[in-house]
Amino acid sequence: MRQSTDKKGVDQAVAVLVQHGIRQVVCSPGSRNAPLVLAIRSHPSLEVEVIVDERVAAFTALGKAIHSGKACVLCCTSGSAVVNYYPAIVEAYYQRVPLVVLTADRPADRIDQQEGQSIRQKDIFADHILSQCSIDEKELSEEALEGLSASIHQTESIGGPVHWNAPLSEPLYGTSEQEDVGVQIISSKPNDPSIPWMELRESWSAAERVLLICGQDTEREASGEKRDLLQQWTERFPQLSVWYETISNTEFEAGMSCIDRFIIPMSTEQKEGFRPDLLLSLGGEWVSRKVKKWLRSYPEVDHWHIDRYRHPDLLRRSFREIHAKPHEFLQQGLKHLVPVKKEASYAAKVRELAVRRNERHDRFTQDSPWSDLRLFTILNQRLPQKGVLFNGNSSVVRYTQLFRWSSELFHLANRGVSGIDGVTSTAIGYARRSSESVFLITGDLAFFYDSNAFWQNDLPDNLKILIVNNGGGGIFRIIEGPDASGWFEPHFEQAHQRSANGLANMYGLQYFCAAAEAELNNCLQDWLSSKGLALLEVFTPREQNDIVLDDYFNYLRYGRS
Amino acid sequence: MRQSTDKKGVDQAVAVLVQHGIRQVVCSPGSRNAPLVLAIRSHPSLEVEVIVDERVAAFTALGKAIHSGKACVLCCTSGSAVVNYYPAIVEAYYQRVPLVVLTADRPADRIDQQEGQSIRQKDIFADHILSQCSIDEKELSEEALEGLSASIHQTESIGGPVHWNAPLSEPLYGTSEQEDVGVQIISSKPNDPSIPWMELRESWSAAERVLLICGQDTEREASGEKRDLLQQWTERFPQLSVWYETISNTEFEAGMSCIDRFIIPMSTEQKEGFRPDLLLSLGGEWVSRKVKKWLRSYPEVDHWHIDRYRHPDLLRRSFREIHAKPHEFLQQGLKHLVPVKKEASYAAKVRELAVRRNERHDRFTQDSPWSDLRLFTILNQRLPQKGVLFNGNSSVVRYTQLFRWSSELFHLANRGVSGIDGVTSTAIGYARRSSESVFLITGDLAFFYDSNAFWQNDLPDNLKILIVNNGGGGIFRIIEGPDASGWFEPHFEQAHQRSANGLANMYGLQYFCAAAEAELNNCLQDWLSSKGLALLEVFTPREQNDIVLDDYFNYLRYGRS
Repeated sequence: MRQSTDKKGVDQAVAVLVQHGIRQVVCSPGSRNAPLVLAIRSHPSLEVEVIVDERVAAFTALGKAIHSGKACVLCCTSGSAVVNYYPAIVEAYYQRVPLVVLTADRPADRIDQQEGQSIRQKDIFADHILSQCSIDEKELSEEALEGLSASIHQTESIGGPVHWNAPLSEPLYGTSEQEDVGVQIISSKPNDPSIPWMELRESWSAAERVLLICGQDTEREASGEKRDLLQQWTERFPQLSVWYETISNTEFEAGMSCIDRFIIPMSTEQKEGFRPDLLLSLGGEWVSRKVKKWLRSYPEVDHWHIDRYRHPDLLRRSFREIHAKPHEFLQQGLKHLVPVKKEASYAAKVRELAVRRNERHDRFTQDSPWSDLRLFTILNQRLPQKGVLFNGNSSVVRYTQLFRWSSELFHLANRGVSGIDGVTSTAIGYARRSSESVFLITGDLAFFYDSNAFWQNDLPDNLKILIVNNGGGGIFRIIEGPDASGWFEPHFEQAHQRSANGLANMYGLQYFCAAAEAELNNCLQDWLSSKGLALLEVFTPREQNDIVLDDYFNYLRYGRS
Repeated sequence: MRQSTDKKGVDQAVAVLVQHGIRQVVCSPGSRNAPLVLAIRSHPSLEVEVIVDERVAAFTALGKAIHSGKACVLCCTSGSAVVNYYPAIVEAYYQRVPLVVLTADRPADRIDQQEGQSIRQKDIFADHILSQCSIDEKELSEEALEGLSASIHQTESIGGPVHWNAPLSEPLYGTSEQEDVGVQIISSKPNDPSIPWMELRESWSAAERVLLICGQDTEREASGEKRDLLQQWTERFPQLSVWYETISNTEFEAGMSCIDRFIIPMSTEQKEGFRPDLLLSLGGEWVSRKVKKWLRSYPEVDHWHIDRYRHPDLLRRSFREIHAKPHEFLQQGLKHLVPVKKEASYAAKVRELAVRRNERHDRFTQDSPWSDLRLFTILNQRLPQKGVLFNGNSSVVRYTQLFRWSSELFHLANRGVSGIDGVTSTAIGYARRSSESVFLITGDLAFFYDSNAFWQNDLPDNLKILIVNNGGGGIFRIIEGPDASGWFEPHFEQAHQRSANGLANMYGLQYFCAAAEAELNNCLQDWLSSKGLALLEVFTPREQNDIVLDDYFNYLRYGRS
C-alpha cells in the first residue's frame, strides 16, 4: 500500500510505468498536475528531477533516455506548459528516443471556456508521437491498462514519444492509500528478419563497387558488435567500401571516415571514378549533404536501405527496404554474400585517395591559422580518447566530420530535427545519467538559445562544454548562398558580441576562455581537469573561418591553397 | 519594381501583407526562410526585428500586436524553430491577438525523409489558429491571393493567429525584380448587432439586482467610451452594480473594483445577500476564481454574455449569447433599458460594503509587515498614475486585483492561457512600440523562465521591470491544496536562491534591489527615473507572505486579524 493521489486512474497509470521498469522522471512545477506528482512520489523507485522551464525539462529528459535506452517520463501542468515540450518531442520523434509525455489537462468540458491554463491539448502532438492515451482519473479499465502497456512497449521498441493526457478535476490534492494493480507487460521478440538475400545477392554479384554508408546510430550496446562485423565485411569483400560519419559510431580500422573531406575536393571526373554499382545504407541520418547530392546524380545505382523501422527516400528515388537492425543484417550477410572475383578493388581505390587526403589534411591543419578549423584540429588531438562527444548542430557537427576520432569516443548529436534549441539540455540530461566524461561542443547561438539549461539543481560534474564563439551562425558561411543576398547579417548570421562569461557568473560555473591558439593551449588542460561542470569559450575569427576552410578544401584538392 | 526573392509566390504573399497595411515583422535567423526574408526586405515599409530564440520572438511579436491592434508577422525557418512559436500562438489564440505566422518548410515530398530541420509542420497549429494557407513558391493563383487577404482580415477582425506555411525548394537565395500585384482588400463592416432587447428587457424588468461583470479587455481605443457608458449606466440604473478587474480597463468612479477583496471575506449569509437576479458579463477572461465559484452556486440566475465572437460557459450552465462588442451593447442599452422603480438599490448596497472594505483595507495595508501585500501597497501608491501596467501571471495579477489603480494606468496581462512562459518578451514587444512608460510586475519564476527575452537589440528604454522574488511559485500558497500534500517543495513551489542580478550583469541592464521596505523606498524613485530598461528585484519573505495575506482577509472580515 502506498500513500498516493486519491485519483485511482492516475495512480494506476503511474503504477504501469513503474511495472515496466521505468525509473527516470522529469517534472515541472504546477498545480493541475498535482495528482500525477503525488502518484509519482508514492514510488520510491522513481528518480524525480524538477525543472521549471518545460522546454529545458523535455530536452533533459531526451538526454536521459538517449543514455539509458529506456523511456524517460515527462510530467507537467496543463496549458502552455505542454507546448513548451514540443521542440524536444519532434527531436525525440525523429531521433527515435523513448519518452512518455504525461500532461495534466482540464476536464474536456472546461476547454475553451476561459479557464486559466487550458488549451486544446488532446491531439496536440498527434503528428509527432507514436500513440496517445487519455487517462481517466476515476479508474482505468482493463482495456485502458493494456493500452498503456502497449504504449510503453511502443516507445521503447520503436523509439519515439508517446503522449498520455490526463484530464483532472478539482480537488487536486487529495490522497489515499493505493494498491498496485498487475498489468501485462507486453514484450515482442521479433522473428529473425527475413531479408531477401536472393535478390540482394543478384545485385551484389553484379557489382564491382559496393558502397555501404552508415547513418546515425546511438545504440551503444550493439555498437561493438557492429564494428567487428564491419571489419569482417571489409576484410572479406574487396569490392566493398564502408563510409561513415562520426555519429554512426562505427569507427573501425578499415573504414572510411571523413566523407566530406573525401567528396568536396573531387573533380567531376574523380567523382565519376568512385561511382558505386550498389549502395547499401544502414540506419539513421546523414550529416553530409555532399554525399547525398553526389549519389543523387546516379539514379541507376541499385540502393538498399537497411533499418528496423524507417525507410526514408534519402536519395529521392526508388530503393529497396530491408527491415532489419544493422547488426542483424551484417551478421547474416557474412553467410549469404560472396567476395567478388575481380582483381580490382573498390575499397583499395577509396583507401588510396583517402590516404592522400589524410596526408594533405595533416599537412594543412598542422599549422593552419587560428580559426574554427584549427580549433577542431587541436580538439581532435587533445580531447581525451575516451568518453562521449556531444556534437552541436550546424557548423560544429560539420567540422567534427573532417576529423577521425578515437573509436572509444562515443558521438551523439540531436540530428532528428537538427535544431539548435535544446543541445545543452540534452547533453546535461545525458551526462547526469552517465559515469563517463561528456564533452559538448556547441556553437554560440545554440549555447545562448538554451541558456535556461543551467537552471536546474546539481549540474553534472562530468560535463565539459566547449563553446565555439565565432560571432553567430557560422554555418551560413559553410553552406552556399546567403553571402550574395546582401542580407547576410542579421538574418542568416546573427553577429553579436555576447560572451558566455555572464552566464557562467550567473550560475556559478567555472569559465575558461581563449581567443588564440596559445591561450587555448594554456587553459585546455585546466578545463578538462576541472572538478565540476565547466565552460570553455573559444573565440574564433568570424570572417577568417571561411577563408581558412576554403583554403583547406583547395589544398586537399590541388595540394596548394 | 523591387529587388526581391526570385520565388514569385513568396514575393506575392509578402506583398499582400504590405498592401494590408501590416508594418511589423519579427524574423528569426535561418536558411530555409531566406526567400521570405528577401521578400520582406524588399519592402522598406516593413519594420523588421531579428530575434534568435523563436519562443522569445513570438511573444515579442505578440506584445507588438497587442499594442497596435494590427497583425504582427513572424517569420522563421523550418523544423523545430516552428514549434518554438507554439507557446505564444496558444496565448495569441485565446487572448485574440492578430499574428501572421509565416514559416518556411521543406517541399512536401522531403518531409520524413531524414532531411535536416524538417517536421510535419503543415497542420501543426491547426487547433490554435483561425486559418492556414500554403504558399506556392512558384506563383499564387487569384484564388490563393484572395485566401491570403481573407486570412489577414480574419486575424485582424476576430483576433488570433493565422499560419502561412511556405514549402521552399533550393536554391533559396536567388533574387530578381518583382512587381507588386493588386489584391482585393477584404474589409467587413458588420451590421449593427441585433441584440434581443425584448427578451433581455423581460429579465431586466424582473430584476432588482443586476450584476454586470467586465472581463479582460485590452482594446484601448474603445476603452474611454466604454468607461463613459458604464458611468452613465450606473447613474441611470440603481439596480445595477458594475464589477470589474484591473485587466478589463474599465476603472470608473462608480464601479466596484477589487472583486476578490469584496468576495473572499464574506460569510455565507453575506454572499447570499448579494445574489444577483440577473447577470451580465462583458468580454474576456476573469482572474477571480472566487467570483466564478460564488456565481456558480446560483444556477437559477439569468446570465447573458456579451462579446463579439466568443461565448464560453464561464459558469458551467446555460446562458444567453449576445453577439456584440461591449461598448455597442452599452450604447444601445441606454435606449432600451429602464431604471427599476423600487427604492432599494443593489448598487448602493454593494457600495456600502465596499466602502467598509476599503477602510479596513487601508487600515491594514498602511502598516502591514514586509510582504508581497505590503510591496503591492507601496506600488499602488507610488507607481506613476499614467502609463501601462503589465501584470505577470500567477500571484502578481491576483495581488494587483486587491488594489484600485488610476484609470489612466492601462492594464495588460497574458490571460489567454495564463502561462508564465513569455511575459517579459510580451512586455518588451509592447514597450518597443509604445511611447508611454511600461511597468512590468512579474514573479521570479516567470522572470527566469523568459530570461532569453533580453537577447535582442535595443531593449526599450521605457520599460521598467519589477521582479517579485518570493523564492518561487508563491501562487501555490494563495490557492488551496498543495500545502497538505507534503510535496509542497519542489513540485508546487520552486524554492531557489537565484537573483536577477546575474541576468542584469549579463545583459548590462540597470539593476536595483530591495529586501525591506526602507530599501524599497530608497531605490524606487531611482528605478522609475532610470534612463534605460531597468530591473528592480524585490525580495519578500516566502512564508511570511501567506500569513500576512491570511491576516489581511481576516481583518477585512472581522476587523481584526
